[in-house]
Formats: sequence, structure tokens, C-alpha cells
Amino acid sequence: MDKAFQKERSDKKIVAIGGGTGVFTVLTGLKDYFKNLTAIVTMADDGGSTGILRAEFGILPPGDIRRALIALAPANQGLLSELFNYRFQEGTGLAGHSFGNLMITALERLTGNFEKAVEEAGRILSVQGRVLPVTLTPPMLLAQLDDGRVIRGETNISVARTASWAGGIKRAWLEPKVSLNPKAEKAILEAQCVILSPGDFYTSLIPNLIVDGMKEALKKTKATVIYFINITAKYGETTGFKASDFLKTIEKYIGTGAIDYVIINKTKPSLTRFKSYIDQKAEFVEPDLENFNSKPTPILADLLRLSGLIRHDPEKIAKVVKMLI
Amino acid sequence: MDKAFQKERSDKKIVAIGGGTGVFTVLTGLKDYFKNLTAIVTMADDGGSTGILRAEFGILPPGDIRRALIALAPANQGLLSELFNYRFQEGTGLAGHSFGNLMITALERLTGNFEKAVEEAGRILSVQGRVLPVTLTPPMLLAQLDDGRVIRGETNISVARTASWAGGIKRAWLEPKVSLNPKAEKAILEAQCVILSPGDFYTSLIPNLIVDGMKEALKKTKATVIYFINITAKYGETTGFKASDFLKTIEKYIGTGAIDYVIINKTKPSLTRFKSYIDQKAEFVEPDLENFNSKPTPILADLLRLSGLIRHDPEKIAKVVKMLI
Repeated sequence: MDKAFQKERSDKKIVAIGGGTGVFTVLTGLKDYFKNLTAIVTMADDGGSTGILRAEFGILPPGDIRRALIALAPANQGLLSELFNYRFQEGTGLAGHSFGNLMITALERLTGNFEKAVEEAGRILSVQGRVLPVTLTPPMLLAQLDDGRVIRGETNISVARTASWAGGIKRAWLEPKVSLNPKAEKAILEAQCVILSPGDFYTSLIPNLIVDGMKEALKKTKATVIYFINITAKYGETTGFKASDFLKTIEKYIGTGAIDYVIINKTKPSLTRFKSYIDQKAEFVEPDLENFNSKPTPILADLLRLSGLIRHDPEKIAKVVKMLI
Repeated sequence: MDKAFQKERSDKKIVAIGGGTGVFTVLTGLKDYFKNLTAIVTMADDGGSTGILRAEFGILPPGDIRRALIALAPANQGLLSELFNYRFQEGTGLAGHSFGNLMITALERLTGNFEKAVEEAGRILSVQGRVLPVTLTPPMLLAQLDDGRVIRGETNISVARTASWAGGIKRAWLEPKVSLNPKAEKAILEAQCVILSPGDFYTSLIPNLIVDGMKEALKKTKATVIYFINITAKYGETTGFKASDFLKTIEKYIGTGAIDYVIINKTKPSLTRFKSYIDQKAEFVEPDLENFNSKPTPILADLLRLSGLIRHDPEKIAKVVKMLI
């Protein structure tokens, strides 16, 4: 991207909702074109470094916050982003911890407030934009499988999914019932565009949508709401999902009418690239346009990265968003 | 200090040698008056958070580096210095660790080089000046007590000192024999002023002076070498030391002729302030001018902080240095 263009970044307010690598991809794509980015990220993570800090410090989970902050950090800062993402490989009690998670934890203790800690971390990283926890109360994610079993905790849900479970997830909810962070609500209501990010469906996107008040905020906002449907369907979670199944499932939680556009990838990855996914019984999500109505408007586009993992291309996401708003 | 003055900070090159709170005090005092500050700090620390990181990561000890970096960081950076100095109180394997130590450790792993890690940490903290490890090989400090016993490791020496030991330390050395960091040598040779900082005598100052090449560098430099003698003598380490005993002991390691000025505090703290020190059998260091010769020139001055711990006042240190160079 040339510099002249960069100066003309749009000042439209964009909100990206999600977690993990999905919201990271969206933010990475958009930050070169939009000045006013807000990421709203899930607080249901309970695994790994984040899970340990959550359990031992009683704080909100820092992992998804960390990834979104890195996406919004400028590239020209030397080692700072790399440091923030560094994971200790050695040290009793240190190995496995992400440095950025430790920084957010220390800042929470210094400020006595998780939101302030995230703001301070953003300042240290010179982040352009904001990252907001979707809720300020740490919730636990629960899922009931098709066979009736109830799985408690995001990590256990991922484990159940990758184990022998062939069915799907009947419903997901949070305990305790937690409310939408007022700042996140304000951001959604004031935005020109809200993006529901791709990524782990039940562990990154849905935990945001089932927070009390989210459904209402998405209904109420005048923003253009765009949902990027996943490229692959994961076995045991969204087994056999076609594009329309993702939308149908989301509408179970937020109702119909909130989403304006559904963006569906049309490009099938090569068999070579898809091999490791097939080993995990993942499937390419069929763009079943015939099962969509006019609202939300389905848009078919090439969204696939040119190489590597089967993921959305940040630049291609940005192009679609620029076109629609 | 008014701003006009600050703009006129001297560009004379000053080197402060030491560790812990002593070099911190010197740097804090000097940074408002001198632009080109270099701290050279001991690498013999093996206790606490630093000791654990040293043992588990095999890195040079970050603790004394951290304190010197904080002294040289600007005050107007929000929480950054506070964060760098934050010590975790909770967390398996985390409790007790200083965040700044963890940052230096992570940067060492990312850059593959301790010196670069310290430079990067300095950049992140917007440090004005440089902090250099006195040596690039991690050494162990050993001490032989007056009764012949040999104590291995800085922490054990502190423990021996604070336990029941009434005598003093006969000699201290490093294993393996380690050489002066070439950058530290260059800084000493190019300086207009070298300060031997107050602080823990055998665990902060001496471990710098017994590094191979230090004696020669201090002899060779044209810098004005100023030694600030401690205000209190610690029981079991410098038991009963008068001012002249500190100088005599240092000259055992670096020979005579290197030091130009010895700065001796003349102000006795009030009994109320001194009480907790007396409980630890510490003594006020008598300014025994009668036992000094003309080289180094002894200077008697009020160096005591107005309140709190019995320590040097940073501003009073700065005044003396400004007067002498």
C-alpha cells in the first residue's frame, strides 16, 4: 500500500467482534484502511497461559486481548510486538506463559482494573484503535452436545470436539449470565460497520454473541453488520456445516434481521493445502447460495489466502468491507 | 529544577559503577544534570527472581540492570517504569518474579544476546543513557571470612553476614575469572568522570571492581574518579569500618592512585531514624579524616537524605559531582 493512500484512511467507525486468529485477521486487514477500529473480544478463554492466569489471579482472560492488540500495533516498533507475543519455553511456572499475558496481568494488578490494564498495554504498544473485553465479568462457556452431554469450559469444549465426537453442538451458553461491557455496547451503537469475524465458531465468535445485551445492541445499531463465514467446518463442532448452517446457528442466538451481509468464500483450496485438514476430518464449507434469502444479502467472494493455512486473507476481507460501507 | 536548566544538561560523559539501590541513587541524582550517563552494574547477583532466572535460563542476572534502567527512565511515561518494577505476588512460579526481569529474559531469548536485550529494554523504557553489564560471563561471587571459611554465592554471603557472623570479610573474588565487558572498558576510558557508587559494599560495588581489567581501566582513564563512601557500616561485612577502612579495602583490589576524590558523609542521622539500623548492629561510618592522605582527596559533605532510610540523597550527590568536574 502506498503512503498517499495510508494518509487517506477512512474515519468510519468499525467494530470487529470475535477472538483468536479470526479477529486478528480482520484487524490486520482493516487497519491500513480505517482509523477508528474497535475490537470486541471474547472473555471465555480458559486454556493455556490464559487459563492459568485466570485461575491464579482471578482476572479476565488476557489471551484474545493480546492477539487483538498485536494486530492493531504498528509494524515499525522493533521487537515490541514480538516481545508481547513471546512465549516462555523454560522456567518453572514460566514455561508456556505468553509475555503479553503476563504484562496485562501485571498491569491489572497495578491499575486494579482489567480495562485500564488493556488501555495501558495498548498505549505501551502504540496501538491504533481500541480493544474491549466483551464483558467485564469472567464467564465460563458451556455447551450441550447433540447427545445431551453438557461440557463445561472452553478448553473442554475444544477437547470434546477434537476427540471422538462426531456430532455437533446443540447450544452454548455462559455461566454466570454476564452483561455486555457498556463501552462495547457504545462502540456497536456508534459504529458505521460491525464485523462478525471468522474463526473458531463456538469458542471465538459465539461466546461474544451470547453475552446479555449483545443481541439487542446488534439489532439496535445503524451499522452495516457483516458476517464472514468460515472457510472450513470443524469436525465435532460444525460438522458438515454449509454456509447457510453458520448463519442459521448464529440467528438462533441473535435472532434474524441484525446481519446485513453474509460473506461466503467461493475458492476451494488445493488438495495439497487441504490435506492436514482432511486428516482432522474438517470440510470445505459449501457456498450453498440457494439456501439464503435476500436478507442478509449473501455475497460470494474469493477470500482465501494465497498459501499456507486455510484462512481468510486480511487484504481480501478489507476489500469487501470497503466495498460495502 | 527549572526547565531552562534542564535544557543545559552537561554533555560530559559520566560513568557510575555499582549495583542495587546505590547506583540507582547516583543515576537518579545525575540524570537531571548530565546527558551522557553510563551505568556499569554487577553481574554477581544470584538471589530471588534474578537467581531463579539465572539458574533456569542460564542468562546474566537481570536485577541490577533493571534497577539502573528504571533510574534512567523518564518520569513522564505513565505506568511503564512502575510496570517494569512490578513484582508478582501470586501465581505458581510467578510469585516473586519482577516483571522487568521477565522482560529482560524474554528479550534475551528473542535477540539471543543479553546486551542487545538490555538495549531493547532501554529503548522500550525510553531510557536516557546506557546500562552495561560489567562482564558478559555470569560469574559467582566468593568470599573468605576472617575465620577462613569460604562462602560461595552473593546471596549466601549476605546470609552469612546477617546471621551470627561478627567478623569481617578477608577477601572476595569471582569464579570463573571474568573479563571486563569491552563496552564498559571503552566507557570508562572515554569518560570525564567515573563514580564508584555507595551501596552494599561486598555485593554491589566490589563485584564490579574485581572483574579482570577493571583495575587497569580505572588506572588508565583520564576521568576524575570519585568514590562515595557508605553512610553506614553493616555488621558482619564491614563491621566497625570507618571511612578510611572502605578506601583501604577498595585499594586492596584496585591498587592506589586510581581514585581522585573520596566523598565522606558528615551528617549523623537522628537516633530515631537510626534505630532499626542499630537493631541490625549497623554503625554510622565515622569520617576519620585524620587517616586520609592528600591523594585521593577526602571531601567531607552532608550527603544524608532528609528523611526515611539512611541513604545518600541523589541531589546532594549530584551537587558534589557538578562541583568536582
